[in-house]
Amino acid sequence: MKKAAVFRLSMAHPGDLSELERLIASGRVRPTEVAAVIGKTEGNGGVNDFTRGYFTQTLMGLLSNHLGRPAERLIREIPCVLSGGTEGVMSPHYIVLCIGEHEGVPAQGPALAIGTAFSEPVPPENVGRRAHIDSVADAVRKAVAAAGIERPDVHFVQVKCPCVTVARAEAAIAAGKAPLTSDPNKSMAYARAAGAFGVALGLGEIKPDGFGDASLLSDFSIQSPRASISSGVEVESNEVIVLGNSPHWSGPLRIAYRPMGDALDIGAVVDVLSDLGIAAAPQVAVRDAARIAAVLVKCEPDRRGRIRGNRHTMLDDTDINAQRHVRGAVAGLVAGVIGDGRIFVSGGAEHQGPDGGGLIAVIASQEQGRA
Amino acid sequence: MKKAAVFRLSMAHPGDLSELERLIASGRVRPTEVAAVIGKTEGNGGVNDFTRGYFTQTLMGLLSNHLGRPAERLIREIPCVLSGGTEGVMSPHYIVLCIGEHEGVPAQGPALAIGTAFSEPVPPENVGRRAHIDSVADAVRKAVAAAGIERPDVHFVQVKCPCVTVARAEAAIAAGKAPLTSDPNKSMAYARAAGAFGVALGLGEIKPDGFGDASLLSDFSIQSPRASISSGVEVESNEVIVLGNSPHWSGPLRIAYRPMGDALDIGAVVDVLSDLGIAAAPQVAVRDAARIAAVLVKCEPDRRGRIRGNRHTMLDDTDINAQRHVRGAVAGLVAGVIGDGRIFVSGGAEHQGPDGGGLIAVIASQEQGRA
Amino acid sequence: MKKAAVFRLSMAHPGDLSELERLIASGRVRPTEVAAVIGKTEGNGGVNDFTRGYFTQTLMGLLSNHLGRPAERLIREIPCVLSGGTEGVMSPHYIVLCIGEHEGVPAQGPALAIGTAFSEPVPPENVGRRAHIDSVADAVRKAVAAAGIERPDVHFVQVKCPCVTVARAEAAIAAGKAPLTSDPNKSMAYARAAGAFGVALGLGEIKPDGFGDASLLSDFSIQSPRASISSGVEVESNEVIVLGNSPHWSGPLRIAYRPMGDALDIGAVVDVLSDLGIAAAPQVAVRDAARIAAVLVKCEPDRRGRIRGNRHTMLDDTDINAQRHVRGAVAGLVAGVIGDGRIFVSGGAEHQGPDGGGLIAVIASQEQGRA
Amino acid sequence: MKKAAVFRLSMAHPGDLSELERLIASGRVRPTEVAAVIGKTEGNGGVNDFTRGYFTQTLMGLLSNHLGRPAERLIREIPCVLSGGTEGVMSPHYIVLCIGEHEGVPAQGPALAIGTAFSEPVPPENVGRRAHIDSVADAVRKAVAAAGIERPDVHFVQVKCPCVTVARAEAAIAAGKAPLTSDPNKSMAYARAAGAFGVALGLGEIKPDGFGDASLLSDFSIQSPRASISSGVEVESNEVIVLGNSPHWSGPLRIAYRPMGDALDIGAVVDVLSDLGIAAAPQVAVRDAARIAAVLVKCEPDRRGRIRGNRHTMLDDTDINAQRHVRGAVAGLVAGVIGDGRIFVSGGAEHQGPDGGGLIAVIASQEQGRA
Repeated sequence: MKKAAVFRLSMAHPGDLSELERLIASGRVRPTEVAAVIGKTEGNGGVNDFTRGYFTQTLMGLLSNHLGRPAERLIREIPCVLSGGTEGVMSPHYIVLCIGEHEGVPAQGPALAIGTAFSEPVPPENVGRRAHIDSVADAVRKAVAAAGIERPDVHFVQVKCPCVTVARAEAAIAAGKAPLTSDPNKSMAYARAAGAFGVALGLGEIKPDGFGDASLLSDFSIQSPRASISSGVEVESNEVIVLGNSPHWSGPLRIAYRPMGDALDIGAVVDVLSDLGIAAAPQVAVRDAARIAAVLVKCEPDRRGRIRGNRHTMLDDTDINAQRHVRGAVAGLVAGVIGDGRIFVSGGAEHQGPDGGGLIAVIASQEQGRA
Repeated sequence: MKKAAVFRLSMAHPGDLSELERLIASGRVRPTEVAAVIGKTEGNGGVNDFTRGYFTQTLMGLLSNHLGRPAERLIREIPCVLSGGTEGVMSPHYIVLCIGEHEGVPAQGPALAIGTAFSEPVPPENVGRRAHIDSVADAVRKAVAAAGIERPDVHFVQVKCPCVTVARAEAAIAAGKAPLTSDPNKSMAYARAAGAFGVALGLGEIKPDGFGDASLLSDFSIQSPRASISSGVEVESNEVIVLGNSPHWSGPLRIAYRPMGDALDIGAVVDVLSDLGIAAAPQVAVRDAARIAAVLVKCEPDRRGRIRGNRHTMLDDTDINAQRHVRGAVAGLVAGVIGDGRIFVSGGAEHQGPDGGGLIAVIASQEQGRA
Repeated sequence: MKKAAVFRLSMAHPGDLSELERLIASGRVRPTEVAAVIGKTEGNGGVNDFTRGYFTQTLMGLLSNHLGRPAERLIREIPCVLSGGTEGVMSPHYIVLCIGEHEGVPAQGPALAIGTAFSEPVPPENVGRRAHIDSVADAVRKAVAAAGIERPDVHFVQVKCPCVTVARAEAAIAAGKAPLTSDPNKSMAYARAAGAFGVALGLGEIKPDGFGDASLLSDFSIQSPRASISSGVEVESNEVIVLGNSPHWSGPLRIAYRPMGDALDIGAVVDVLSDLGIAAAPQVAVRDAARIAAVLVKCEPDRRGRIRGNRHTMLDDTDINAQRHVRGAVAGLVAGVIGDGRIFVSGGAEHQGPDGGGLIAVIASQEQGRA
Repeated sequence: MKKAAVFRLSMAHPGDLSELERLIASGRVRPTEVAAVIGKTEGNGGVNDFTRGYFTQTLMGLLSNHLGRPAERLIREIPCVLSGGTEGVMSPHYIVLCIGEHEGVPAQGPALAIGTAFSEPVPPENVGRRAHIDSVADAVRKAVAAAGIERPDVHFVQVKCPCVTVARAEAAIAAGKAPLTSDPNKSMAYARAAGAFGVALGLGEIKPDGFGDASLLSDFSIQSPRASISSGVEVESNEVIVLGNSPHWSGPLRIAYRPMGDALDIGAVVDVLSDLGIAAAPQVAVRDAARIAAVLVKCEPDRRGRIRGNRHTMLDDTDINAQRHVRGAVAGLVAGVIGDGRIFVSGGAEHQGPDGGGLIAVIASQEQGRA
């Protein structure tokens, strides 16, 4: 019987993996069991955020040393999904997802299950289009199958999609291709939309003929409350991590998720904790906070310019990117409820949860005193 | 018997006072009763934030038209304290504090009381020094006396202090003076510290011989949990607004405050609402939210680089000013509890509440259905 | 015979018009002769740059005081075209263009001539479309006629166009209209493109049937080397200022212009000065610099991501807006040649001069020792 | 006889060293001959600029692969001095400095000579103090000796100094040490000042008893026109690269330098090119530009708030760091004269060249058609 383990580790800078190194040295983490990494680095989260590439290079170098296999291979096998931007109270950290074998008598009830998959590389001209969506959906199906989770028991699907830079777009155009856009920020948005449609399709939430290319960034009634999509210049394939609860897995960890209606939806935060048996009145007690292994949030500056009727200024700000604004605000709320800044809050929630909102997923132990 | 009224109004941009204009036109606000204005404009909150000056010019022009007195005079009589920066979910708005006469039978119990005062202009070389502190303390005492509040019943003192720009500092140096610093952001910090010491001194929280110039920005055990200080290039005098509850005032409004221990202190938010008879479980009900007239918060990026043991990145960020970071985060938390982005969250809480934290004050009606 | 006068004045902040006030007080500027103002304020130059509105409000208030006419009227009669953003070595300043009568014997040869015009308001749904272009072209023709300049002798046409904010776009959509975009930065770009097409059409550089709506921001072979377009939230009509040389005007001032091939085109800067009899080898001598009354530049971050074959990073930067980048760079170059930071360098040069470049116009006196 | 070779290479992102890889593969660069690397990466140039660490990790990994020695060793032997921030027209690139043996008959006259050295690690509490200065001076003397250059023939000394982050400062304080400041941006400034004093001391430009700790960032008459200092979180020792002309070296390359009086000093740019026999009238011809191997510039936002009497806004800008402003402006000027964006322009020129200015050094071939 498989057993998932989750380690939440801090970093001093994007090239600092010393905490993982220590866990490996001590035998608590076996390098062969590392299935995926999700992290929050301290860049700007935009096209020119190189903290993601720096962390990834460092991680793959470390694993390469321990596994005796080339980093170029590992990077195509172990999803490393990073979101840049630790605005406000967020603390740079990464979550190491491990798949091991259960020793001893398995615990009863379903437990956290993990599945991963990689798609083929997505050419620049496909980014944000149907071929991109299908590519994500296929990878999601593969990851679900690998994990052995029933589709309704999938609680969170993290996808990292490639996008175009000005340089990539120029190269594609020079080669006679027609990328959707040459604007990198626009491309990141389309890539995230394609990822969300791909998750919805892969989980059977929408039908293949229920949408077209024009639905992306346009029909926001199409969404998946379990999709969390990042996009960045440092990947060429879609990388997929599926998390859910499965009776075929063992261990104390469980995952739950809730859609967030808007950036003020504190109710969703309290409810997802409640689903895992954790009270927040108003804040999670220190004892219970120790049970929390990961907090994963997607959010969005409401594109209509208002939140509950009041004008916000995120979209009109030329100085600070709107995604940085909303990440900082929603992280302030979630960290306040949990009492901990080590939370993964990622912007760009197009089609990921309700329009103007997003979603939250939490992994926690069902046992006292441990995550 | 005096009666305070508080109007919370939205603006479409920093020169938009059309909501106040409408209230005056309709007779709901009498221009002669406007005692002070506190607002949150959508600038960057730094030295080069001119949204404050723009709003102030517009406000004084409007009141000048209605009162038939020159704007240059009014600006020395009606404190207009603005904090720039509506990061994240905050919505640009302003709070008009009016002092009128109670008509009919006065309500029982103490009610919101308002007092204001202006100091003499503070020369650039005094900014952040003892003379600055004494100047603030005198103005605080005058405003408390004007309001007729007992000192323990003062719940919030807003001060706007002048600071130096590079140009002002150069001029002072050329005139043979020695300003504390030529760095405008540093000057703003010292000005805020001087304001906080001035409030503490004026309220009797500290003794005149209990500190020296070197205590500013250094001994953070000295603080006032009722002081909220802004500083900016657009004022030359200290402007003081004192808010408290007084048995000599009438009306449904009450004010309460709580210190905030750090940027995650959701408990303080829930407690201050509870002091006013408003529940947040986890969010204030829409019916109760309508009773809230003003939310005033000060906060601070913890200067030690950590929040509850976890590293934050606000102080090391060259792209986004640390005050913008923390305002966005704390506003996300407070707005999430209240369900409303029209909150005044101001950074730079040096000596205003606990080190690394700050404070929150709320004005609410004791009657259902109205603020 | 008419005579143009140009005053280049510095400001301490966007609400500081004390230098103009002094010139009026001394009689050097007659308020009735103020025809237009072009200025560079220290905002970010983006949608949320309110330094432009602040300056305009201050200017119109000042002129209203002197002319005894309401500011609301003046703002529809005197174009005040501001570009936000004094990146790098630029110094905040404004250029007051006055039209007076020549006294004494007129100088020989053509002299600087000024014409202005306002269009009707442009509804949000028209911004960036044919109706917008035609509206600009009409206003250009009116301004040229008013100045009495022959079309080939027009050297510079400054237009300020309205754009949409998120709020304006939402309002239009709610009213059943379809604005071109809800993205304010995108809207600003389309508005500038429409302005450039309007100038080209108004000057007869292009034919009415030589382009369509799809040509904007797409066919960059269509351009006017004499068009300088700004767009901003603070205007609702197109405001046009036409500058040229005319035999019907008198005085020592002349204007010249040159297209700039790219952001490194120092040759254009030297050439336009040479056209006015001013040498730069490599820098304009202090004596000659005193003859320069205004320097007006448009520039652009090359949208193809390269300058002379080398990659630039302006378009991929999430921290600093690309227009801020390019303004700072081109201003560094132009100010270095002229030896003075009081230059108007405006970004967003779509269809204004060569693709990836822009243009430069200079007004200088033909007499020694005065501008 | 030694011979210096200089390769100026472009990068697609901070982890892209493919151009160097190709030169090594083709045999044009021998890994054993790589003495130092100076580069301009596309970060923000501030405390949280991790593009420098990313590039360094990638470079050392590449060299480690080719040399068969651990990267941890190489990083202590081969100075890799990076400046973050390619504002405006700058293009990300790196300069590989190689020391080889001359083959064939040596050219006459002095040629470019290269020397390098590393100091011991600088503890946080020493940063910006006398011990730091002495440490730099010692390393400079070692590098000069290693290169065999006479001190007057040294034209450029590049030093990379460590600085403190909030975390490092906290750790030092916890250990009972007293770092000069906990403010990282302040620390970077002090570190650069210490580096400049160290170069001046090492080159004999100042005497050991001619200054004190208080002179740093205070007495700006003390400066070295040949010192170029960077500081960053990614180094713990001072890394020194000395460049000059020496009769003991061979090859076509020469170096020249000039102090820059201020950010508008185009004359210094033209003069340094002239020193190398290259005309710029106004721009370097394409043929001559091909002879240029490296352009190295230091500059500074004038701390007095004015350039040639006109106010600049760099120091009052809360949105864009002042160093980013000035780099973009000066790079615009220098790139315009040279016609090429591959220039190294670094901010923070405290005590490096005249106050408010900086310096420029250029390496060029004395032979046509090659750099």
